[in-house]
Amino acid sequence: MSPRKALPTALALGLTLAAGAHADEGMWMPTQLPELAKPLQAAGFKGNPADLANVTAPPLSAVVRAGGGTGSFVSADGLLLTNHHVAMGVIQYNSSPEHNFINDGFIAKGRADERPANPDFRVLVTVGFDKVTDQVLAQARGKTGRAYFDAVDAASKQIVAECEKDGSVRCSVANMYYGTDFYRIAQLELSDVRLVYAPPRAIGNYGDEIDNFMWPRHTGDFTLLRAYVGKDGKPAAYSKDNVPYQAPAHLQMSVEGPKEGDYAMLAGYPGITYRHRTAAEFAGQIDTVLPRRVSVFQQMIDTIEAASAKDAQARTRYASQLQSLKNNRKRAAGELEGLLRSDAKAQRAADEQAMLAATDRKYQGDIKALLTNLSQGAAVGERDLLLEQMAGQSQLLRSALLLERLRIESAKPDAQRETGYQQRDQAMIEGVLKQVQRRYAPEVEKALLSTLLTRYQQLPDAQRVAEFDAAFGRTPAQLAQALDTLYAGTQLGDEAQRLSRFAVAREGKALAADPLIAVAGPLVAAQLRIENESKTREGEQLRLRPAYMQALFAWRAKQGRAVYPDANRTLRISYGKVEALHPRDGVTYSPVTTVAGIVEKNTNAYPFDAPKPLLAAIAKGDFGSTADPALKTQTVNFLTNLDTTGGNSGSPVLNAKGELIGLNFDSNWESVSASWWFDPRYKRAVHVDMRYLRWLLAKVYPAPELLKEMGVPAE
Amino acid sequence: MSPRKALPTALALGLTLAAGAHADEGMWMPTQLPELAKPLQAAGFKGNPADLANVTAPPLSAVVRAGGGTGSFVSADGLLLTNHHVAMGVIQYNSSPEHNFINDGFIAKGRADERPANPDFRVLVTVGFDKVTDQVLAQARGKTGRAYFDAVDAASKQIVAECEKDGSVRCSVANMYYGTDFYRIAQLELSDVRLVYAPPRAIGNYGDEIDNFMWPRHTGDFTLLRAYVGKDGKPAAYSKDNVPYQAPAHLQMSVEGPKEGDYAMLAGYPGITYRHRTAAEFAGQIDTVLPRRVSVFQQMIDTIEAASAKDAQARTRYASQLQSLKNNRKRAAGELEGLLRSDAKAQRAADEQAMLAATDRKYQGDIKALLTNLSQGAAVGERDLLLEQMAGQSQLLRSALLLERLRIESAKPDAQRETGYQQRDQAMIEGVLKQVQRRYAPEVEKALLSTLLTRYQQLPDAQRVAEFDAAFGRTPAQLAQALDTLYAGTQLGDEAQRLSRFAVAREGKALAADPLIAVAGPLVAAQLRIENESKTREGEQLRLRPAYMQALFAWRAKQGRAVYPDANRTLRISYGKVEALHPRDGVTYSPVTTVAGIVEKNTNAYPFDAPKPLLAAIAKGDFGSTADPALKTQTVNFLTNLDTTGGNSGSPVLNAKGELIGLNFDSNWESVSASWWFDPRYKRAVHVDMRYLRWLLAKVYPAPELLKEMGVPAE
Repeated sequence: MSPRKALPTALALGLTLAAGAHADEGMWMPTQLPELAKPLQAAGFKGNPADLANVTAPPLSAVVRAGGGTGSFVSADGLLLTNHHVAMGVIQYNSSPEHNFINDGFIAKGRADERPANPDFRVLVTVGFDKVTDQVLAQARGKTGRAYFDAVDAASKQIVAECEKDGSVRCSVANMYYGTDFYRIAQLELSDVRLVYAPPRAIGNYGDEIDNFMWPRHTGDFTLLRAYVGKDGKPAAYSKDNVPYQAPAHLQMSVEGPKEGDYAMLAGYPGITYRHRTAAEFAGQIDTVLPRRVSVFQQMIDTIEAASAKDAQARTRYASQLQSLKNNRKRAAGELEGLLRSDAKAQRAADEQAMLAATDRKYQGDIKALLTNLSQGAAVGERDLLLEQMAGQSQLLRSALLLERLRIESAKPDAQRETGYQQRDQAMIEGVLKQVQRRYAPEVEKALLSTLLTRYQQLPDAQRVAEFDAAFGRTPAQLAQALDTLYAGTQLGDEAQRLSRFAVAREGKALAADPLIAVAGPLVAAQLRIENESKTREGEQLRLRPAYMQALFAWRAKQGRAVYPDANRTLRISYGKVEALHPRDGVTYSPVTTVAGIVEKNTNAYPFDAPKPLLAAIAKGDFGSTADPALKTQTVNFLTNLDTTGGNSGSPVLNAKGELIGLNFDSNWESVSASWWFDPRYKRAVHVDMRYLRWLLAKVYPAPELLKEMGVPAE
Repeated sequence: MSPRKALPTALALGLTLAAGAHADEGMWMPTQLPELAKPLQAAGFKGNPADLANVTAPPLSAVVRAGGGTGSFVSADGLLLTNHHVAMGVIQYNSSPEHNFINDGFIAKGRADERPANPDFRVLVTVGFDKVTDQVLAQARGKTGRAYFDAVDAASKQIVAECEKDGSVRCSVANMYYGTDFYRIAQLELSDVRLVYAPPRAIGNYGDEIDNFMWPRHTGDFTLLRAYVGKDGKPAAYSKDNVPYQAPAHLQMSVEGPKEGDYAMLAGYPGITYRHRTAAEFAGQIDTVLPRRVSVFQQMIDTIEAASAKDAQARTRYASQLQSLKNNRKRAAGELEGLLRSDAKAQRAADEQAMLAATDRKYQGDIKALLTNLSQGAAVGERDLLLEQMAGQSQLLRSALLLERLRIESAKPDAQRETGYQQRDQAMIEGVLKQVQRRYAPEVEKALLSTLLTRYQQLPDAQRVAEFDAAFGRTPAQLAQALDTLYAGTQLGDEAQRLSRFAVAREGKALAADPLIAVAGPLVAAQLRIENESKTREGEQLRLRPAYMQALFAWRAKQGRAVYPDANRTLRISYGKVEALHPRDGVTYSPVTTVAGIVEKNTNAYPFDAPKPLLAAIAKGDFGSTADPALKTQTVNFLTNLDTTGGNSGSPVLNAKGELIGLNFDSNWESVSASWWFDPRYKRAVHVDMRYLRWLLAKVYPAPELLKEMGVPAE
């Protein structure tokens, strides 16, 4: 029984989703929406649900991946709306001590003044979405472990290669329902993206870490970019001669605003959720994984802050990374708190137990095997986290590891190379190697690695890796010595040195000598061995989880509930409403905030240092057409019960007529555990009210041409 | 023009108080209530305002001073309701490692099991309240400075002496409107007060410092005491043969509960407010006094915690003092924050400026002289705070200073002695000397004095005092040496040594030698000199402030507003309603909390360690007749806009019919600045819902006999 068949049955029974306790849970694939027509319309949607089923046609074709989040086209000329924090790298890349666009904001003086994004920033426009399950699994059936994994991987690469053959699109295969289904996604990759309008940091990130994940909120977390293409209309690298991209669709900004109870929906690319994971995985997350993440991220934050305390340039260079680490730490702590509050471990266990008792016998063997497999990966969790952070949070060590791995992969025929190291990935790797200069300070990187490796040195023997021990020693003194030697000797801090080795590595040839390159040899060998162990486990999971999912489909159908696939960075739609939050006894948070809160929070000191022009405009009270008719003042942010997760940053929020009313940028603190467990009492999403954006562009930091381009009043 | 005359005029103009922006501001003298009949009834009061005018007749005669706060009789047999924190000293006095009534709570097994309070705990029942202005000021008129002060003081003492002549009552003279009017107050002083019922600390002080001044709140801050008198019905020291006091009136507990918008009123003994102080005093408070208090209190808290960290007995002995210091520190910080938020400095300045412009010329000279005088006291503010804390926060040093001062005063005829050292005060002094044992640890006292004197040593020469410098040295080393010597040699840690000297001191005779007594000689001489300087300034203020008040009466009458006297620990009434709080943009606090919040806050760790029987009873959900009919659960605390300040702790809260619905115990954080400035947006008072008390006594820690005695259902 496929989940797609289960749905109509459940709905036909009159068990509409809107009536259930989980009414607003769901990151639906657009293809599921026609089957959800009844609950959608019951919730207040005025359009035709069938119009939302095709991700490659308007209006959904206006919604794109942008950087690490989501964006949406808001004009016919490729004007793209996303979050300030999603575009932070773009703003930072264009900032210098002389022109600090982070602090001052940026308004392009006409299109010629729009500034190119950092080379690795991409906008991806989905142009194809097709089910390819049989093709992907054809060779895998009958295999197990690594062989199963490789068969799926090979088939996926084959599909991608075919899809990309004419060079016009970038393709991927998305795994839905944990190996149950596969979809081929084709996307235009726009690499000439330019900065058009960014508010000052003290608007775009007002409240920073103190308000992060908090509600009530007063942050103008938006930025406008513009996508450019070659004169032929096709994606092209940055060139002065490029022209604005004619988006296949764009959203119309509403001139009305949201109020409590209004229907709302959101489209975006949620990163990853774990809602359909096993009870044992829930227990591991709560008891081990999250406490560990909080601790490691905090150590890295402390390290960067201490190492850059006296170096203004280093602080600028690590600003984005630090912000991301703080986000991650706070998110892990909030996830833990929320999962405990929702009693998710016990609830998931009870749900799974009931499901297993009702499960068809034919699935029981695979499910049992899956549970055994999962327990194996948990044993090396801390080591894997530390190794991942060493590569991910460094610049030069990461460059060396990337180059060495690229050299190894490039010696193979392209189709056999690891995903991420194929010819099609080389431009992305080059982008990573190029941005090093703006994000690196030797003392900070050494301090970070020292922190991570010191923790690594404390691991029991069974978790440690010979090659890492050899490279960095077994004692604090050996570690300090190794890092000093490596960073004193390496030339990878020089862009030309990295790029010359990149040119060689992509040919699969030996890299010019360098201390970091030398150490990367054995480290990459170790990474490959660990990767193989991990892929063997993953292969089994890929083979076995579909049985678990089938058990879940059947169990949910009995409950009258449809099943959406866990989020995987593919386009999803969530619908619900503007809703207040009752976070605890005696406390109610309104669903709409106003500029009064900016003034109340303002201390004139970071992070509550609202710009003087904003404070003056609030004091003046000239809100024009953007004032809320009932509140008689300017609104700032609003709250919905929409189902979101990381990656939904920048998602457009639409009203019942499909008009753009908001820009998703955060969740409330009480709901950050929603990546694992949706608790309707606490799950809310936090949005910029488009009336606040319009007011800022009309009255505070004026950009009347942009308002005109978006088809909304300029005052 | 007297304020009593101004009132009817203002009200006759139709400018009723209920209509104004300051509608709920006011700590009214009961005698003012008949003139406030219209606004009282407009607010919802169902009784006859005239019935509330007499503080010595029912129902107000049920409201008494208890310890440092307020209490009210709730049965004909002297059962007295007050706060757990007001009765904390009583509970602590009866606690021992074997019988920890603080942690476990206490329920007397019948009247014979009711436990005597600490010897210095008093309940004062007002039996007379009469205006004596002419008598007090007769000899003062025409004098200035210290002479004015002494004349007022002498007349007051004369009045008190006459009033107390037959020995049946304790009297005092209350100064209303800063020297404008004086009232003679006669009170029965009940010294045999016994502990009847206290909930465990984790109910009575649930949340402790974290929740202190916070809303939403979930604290059962109540305790039941009982007053006893001799068999002749007259006040008497503790004796087993004493009988329950037959209170002149008692309040009837309501069987209904409050809900948003309901009329509410409160009677109590608010300590002190500064609402009618000058703009310059407002500025000094905000710019200097409050920041200094926060700093000094924090230093004392840190000192006690460090010095008692390893000594469980010391921690028990300083628990009450530490709690009080934390309260004071937090209150000072909150006052500062609130005054800044309300922009009180600028608002008070603008109001005063407008008042002065409209002031009758005959008052202008006195007002100008007043402002000059006030600036002189501010210059020695830090020294005075430190000297006051040295005496007030120590036990042995305080005992030595008390004894030495008592010796000096007792050498004079009784009528010429300083207030507090007359024959009538000797029992109180003896009580202070007796309670030392339960509140003293040598290392903690030395550490506290060291902290205060170290700060004192930093003062500029002009603020320092020769006698203190001589006693404690000028350097840290000299200070340490002095304290070591004093505390190694003193015998005042022994109760018999204190009491034998007390017997001698009250005769005005030389005290037996002791290092602390020796040092007290010059220190008391210095205190007397400083006191004289201060009284000279105060005498002038007493003479001059009435002009300022007359200007204010006239100004407020023009605004249609009545003027209540600033609080001075005399009985006052405040009326208003049950009201939600909007502390900031997007946030609403409900006016009633429920037991759900206890569970949400509970961490099983102090201070959120609700007792297991309470959690079990909440889980069971058996709330019987005490459940809120709309909320369908048990309420805990509620919020009103009543005008309160410190000293209102333990005040009964009454409904429109005059029935007891709540017990005042705190303010919200946003309103602790209300002692200076009433901001109707933020000023709320926090009460125990009597339904919570009734539920605890009925179902959780049962005391059915007490419920029966109070005339409410036992389940």
